[in-house]
Amino acid sequence: MNTADLGLPVDVPSTALFTDQYELTMLQAALKAGTAERRSVFEVFTRRLPDGRRYGVVAGTGRVLDAVENFRFDPDVLGFLRERKIVDEQTLTWLADYRFSGDIWGYPEGEVYFPGSPIMRVEGTFAECVLLETVILSILNHDSAIAAAASRMSSAAGDRPLVEMGARRTHELAAVAASRAAYVGGFASTSDLAAGFRYGIPTVGTSAHAFTLLHDRERDAFQAQVHSMGRGTTLLVDTYDVAEAVRTAVEVAGPELGAVRIDSGDLLLVAHRVRQQLDELGATGTRIIVTSDLDEYAIASLAAAPVDAYGVGTQLVTGSGHPTCSMVYKLVARAESTAAGAPLVPVAKKSTGGKTSIGGRKWAARRLDEYGVAEAEVIGTEAVPAELADRQLLVELVKGGTVVAREPLDAVRDRHAAARANLPLSATQLSRGEPVIPTEYVNGRTGSPAGA
Amino acid sequence: MNTADLGLPVDVPSTALFTDQYELTMLQAALKAGTAERRSVFEVFTRRLPDGRRYGVVAGTGRVLDAVENFRFDPDVLGFLRERKIVDEQTLTWLADYRFSGDIWGYPEGEVYFPGSPIMRVEGTFAECVLLETVILSILNHDSAIAAAASRMSSAAGDRPLVEMGARRTHELAAVAASRAAYVGGFASTSDLAAGFRYGIPTVGTSAHAFTLLHDRERDAFQAQVHSMGRGTTLLVDTYDVAEAVRTAVEVAGPELGAVRIDSGDLLLVAHRVRQQLDELGATGTRIIVTSDLDEYAIASLAAAPVDAYGVGTQLVTGSGHPTCSMVYKLVARAESTAAGAPLVPVAKKSTGGKTSIGGRKWAARRLDEYGVAEAEVIGTEAVPAELADRQLLVELVKGGTVVAREPLDAVRDRHAAARANLPLSATQLSRGEPVIPTEYVNGRTGSPAGA
Repeated sequence: MNTADLGLPVDVPSTALFTDQYELTMLQAALKAGTAERRSVFEVFTRRLPDGRRYGVVAGTGRVLDAVENFRFDPDVLGFLRERKIVDEQTLTWLADYRFSGDIWGYPEGEVYFPGSPIMRVEGTFAECVLLETVILSILNHDSAIAAAASRMSSAAGDRPLVEMGARRTHELAAVAASRAAYVGGFASTSDLAAGFRYGIPTVGTSAHAFTLLHDRERDAFQAQVHSMGRGTTLLVDTYDVAEAVRTAVEVAGPELGAVRIDSGDLLLVAHRVRQQLDELGATGTRIIVTSDLDEYAIASLAAAPVDAYGVGTQLVTGSGHPTCSMVYKLVARAESTAAGAPLVPVAKKSTGGKTSIGGRKWAARRLDEYGVAEAEVIGTEAVPAELADRQLLVELVKGGTVVAREPLDAVRDRHAAARANLPLSATQLSRGEPVIPTEYVNGRTGSPAGA
Repeated sequence: MNTADLGLPVDVPSTALFTDQYELTMLQAALKAGTAERRSVFEVFTRRLPDGRRYGVVAGTGRVLDAVENFRFDPDVLGFLRERKIVDEQTLTWLADYRFSGDIWGYPEGEVYFPGSPIMRVEGTFAECVLLETVILSILNHDSAIAAAASRMSSAAGDRPLVEMGARRTHELAAVAASRAAYVGGFASTSDLAAGFRYGIPTVGTSAHAFTLLHDRERDAFQAQVHSMGRGTTLLVDTYDVAEAVRTAVEVAGPELGAVRIDSGDLLLVAHRVRQQLDELGATGTRIIVTSDLDEYAIASLAAAPVDAYGVGTQLVTGSGHPTCSMVYKLVARAESTAAGAPLVPVAKKSTGGKTSIGGRKWAARRLDEYGVAEAEVIGTEAVPAELADRQLLVELVKGGTVVAREPLDAVRDRHAAARANLPLSATQLSRGEPVIPTEYVNGRTGSPAGA
C-alpha cells in the first residue's frame, strides 16, 4: 500500500524514507565493522539563534514521536533500496526488523530554548539512532522556525487573535505542520482545513475578491454571503471602493454585521477610517480584520489602530525571515565497545571552522533569579547541582522504544505561553538583540575527544 | 482509510483538504445565490519577482496535475466538514460528487517566467475552479521558489554537479518536493531517499562526523567505510585535522579513493591545500566535494578552486532568501450569467493598495530578437499578433477534467536548461537586478471591471 491510493500528492510508504542516504550506508559500514551496536548518545541542539532573535521555541516534538513510532522499512521500501543497490543484503535484513528500541528525552514541546540547549537526546545503539537523524531534524527545524515567528507575532498582537492563513505560501503538507506550530506559538485559528482535520485546530474563513467579482454588483455578493453565512459573517470590503463597500455592507447585513476584512492599502489609515464609518453607521460591534503581508513589525505598528484581529500568511509560514533553524543532531558520547555495560566516551568534532561541538551526555536547567524570572540556561555533563535539580528541562519522551509523553496540543500551547512569560521582559522586544538569557556551561566546556 | 495506516506523520485523506476554509464557504454562498455555475477563468501570476531576481522558474506543474486529479471529498472529509458545520448539507452533497471537469492551460514546467506571466489558467464553473486555489498556489509557490534558487546555483556551478542535501532543513515532505524542484533547476542528485523513491531522482551519500566519532580512531572509521563501500567512496576529512585525515584516507583507500568531503572551514583555502596534498600523494583522480552552508554566491566564489562537486542544503530548500513566490490565483473573467454560451466579462480588483490586477483571459508569448534571444514577455487579452503565434507559452495541461500533459522529469529539467539558455546573458548574473526581459502588455493595460 502506498499513499497514491489515497490521492495524496506524495507516494512514500512510511517515515523511513525521509532519510538521507548516508544514514543507511553508515549503518552498513558499522554493521560490517562490528561497531553498529555500540551504545550511543545523539543530541539535537543549535549553535546559535537566528540573527537578532532572543529566544527559540521548541515545536514539532509530537510529530517527531509519530515519526519515530512509524519508522519502518516495509517491503516496498526494501525493494527500492535493493534495486538501487543502496545497501547490501545484510543491511536490508537488519532494516526489515527495525523498530527504535532506545530512549528519547527532550525539552517538552512549547518550551523556549537558547544556543546550546540540548533540545532532544536520543540514546540507543549507534545503528538505531543514526537512522533517525534526518527526519528528526526535518521536523524540529521546520516546526520550531514557524513557532518562533508565531510567538513573536502573538507577543506583538497582545490580546487580539491571530489567524494563520499561509497555506498557499508553502508546501501543502508543510502548511499543515505550520498551522500546528503557529497554534503552539499563540495563534488562535487557521484557514487550513487539513490542519483542522488533523490537529483539531479551530478553522475560520472570510471570502476572497473573486467572490465579489463573480457577482454583477458588490451588493449582490454581500447579499449572497450574508444570506448563506448569516449576519455574523466577515465581508471583504476592498475590491472596489472601501467606503462605498462599508456602507453597502452595513445596509445589507445591518449593524449586526460580524466583521469586515481589509486586505490592501495603508492598513493603519484605512482601519481608522473604516472604524469611524462603522461607528457612524451604528455598527459599533462590527469587528475589523486586517490581512496583507503582515509580520510581527506590521502587527506591532497597528497596536494603536482599531483592529480586532490579524490574518497572517507568508511571513508566518516562512518563519518571518528565518524559515529554518540550524539545529543539528550530533553524536556526543558512545560506548568504548559493544560489551554490555561498556563505559560511554564523550566525543566531539575537533576540526576548525566554527562547528566544534561539546561532547558528553548533557543535562540542562533554567536558573531563576530572586523574582522567579529566568536568568540563565545552565548546561552540564556531570552531576546536576542540587539547587538546579528541580529546574531541569529534559523530560522522558520515549522509553525503550515506547512513546510515553503524548499530550494535547492545547497543553503545548499553554506551556509555551508560560515559558515565554517566565523570561525577562526584553524577550519579547522585536528589535534585534542577543539571546535574552545566557547559556552557561558547568563541569568544563568541552568533553574529551575520542582519540584522533 | 487515511494516511495514519501508512505510518506517515500526516493524516489527511485526500488533496481536497489542502484548502482554505473560505473556498468552501464561497462555494456555499454562490450555490445559494445561483452564481456558482457561472463559467469562470482564474489565472496564476505574480506581480513581481523576488527582490533583485532576474527570472523565475515554473516548477510544481506535474504535482499540480496530481493534486487536481485527486481532489475528492471522501466520506471522512465530508464527515469532518459536517461535524464542524463548515458548510451546509446542500454544499456537502455537491462536494461529494466533485471532480474537476474544466480545462487548465499553463506554462510548461521548467519554463522561465516574469512579472505578470499567466503561469497557469484554470477555466470551468466558478464552483469547480475556486476550490483549487489553495492547493495550486501551495505547490507552485513552494516548488517554483526552490527551482529558482536551484537554477541560480546551477548557473554558478557551471559543469560541476550539485547535490541536494537539504532534507533536514525543511519539512519532511516539502523536502521531497524540494528535491524534485532542485532537479528541475539543474541539480544532479539528492541525498533524500524519499525523492529517489517517488521521483526517480539519483540519490547519493557520503558519511557524517558521527561515523568517524563512533570509531576509536579516524583510521578505523575510514577502513570500515572503504571495506563496506569500496575505494570509490567519499571520505569525510574534517572531523579532526584535515591534513592528517587526507593522508590517512589515501593510505587506507589508495590513490583510487573516490572523493573526500570538506564540510567546514575556509573552503577556498582548504580545497587548494587538500588538492595539492592529494596530488602529492598520487591521488590525482580523487575528487573534492564541498558542503557547508553553500549558496549561489559561495558556489561562484569557489569557481577557481579545485572543487569537483557541491552539496547544498539550507539555502536550497529555503529558496536562498526567498522561500516562497508571491503567486496569486485571481478571477480574471466570468460569464454574465449561467446561460449556455453567456459571454465572458473581464473582471479585476480596482481598490488602491498596489494589488490591482489585469482582467481578461490572457495569452503570453516570448518575443525573440534577431539573434533568437528572448527580448520581451508579451501578454495580451485579445487576438495574438501573427508574428507571435508560434511563440506562445501556454500549453494545454487538463482538458475536460483529464490530464493531457504528463511528462518525465528529465524533459522538464531539459526544458528549463533550454529556456534559461535562451535568455539574455545577463539573466544568470548573480547580482541584484531587474527582470532580464520586460513584460509588455498589448491590447490595452486593463480589463473593464464588472460594475461596482
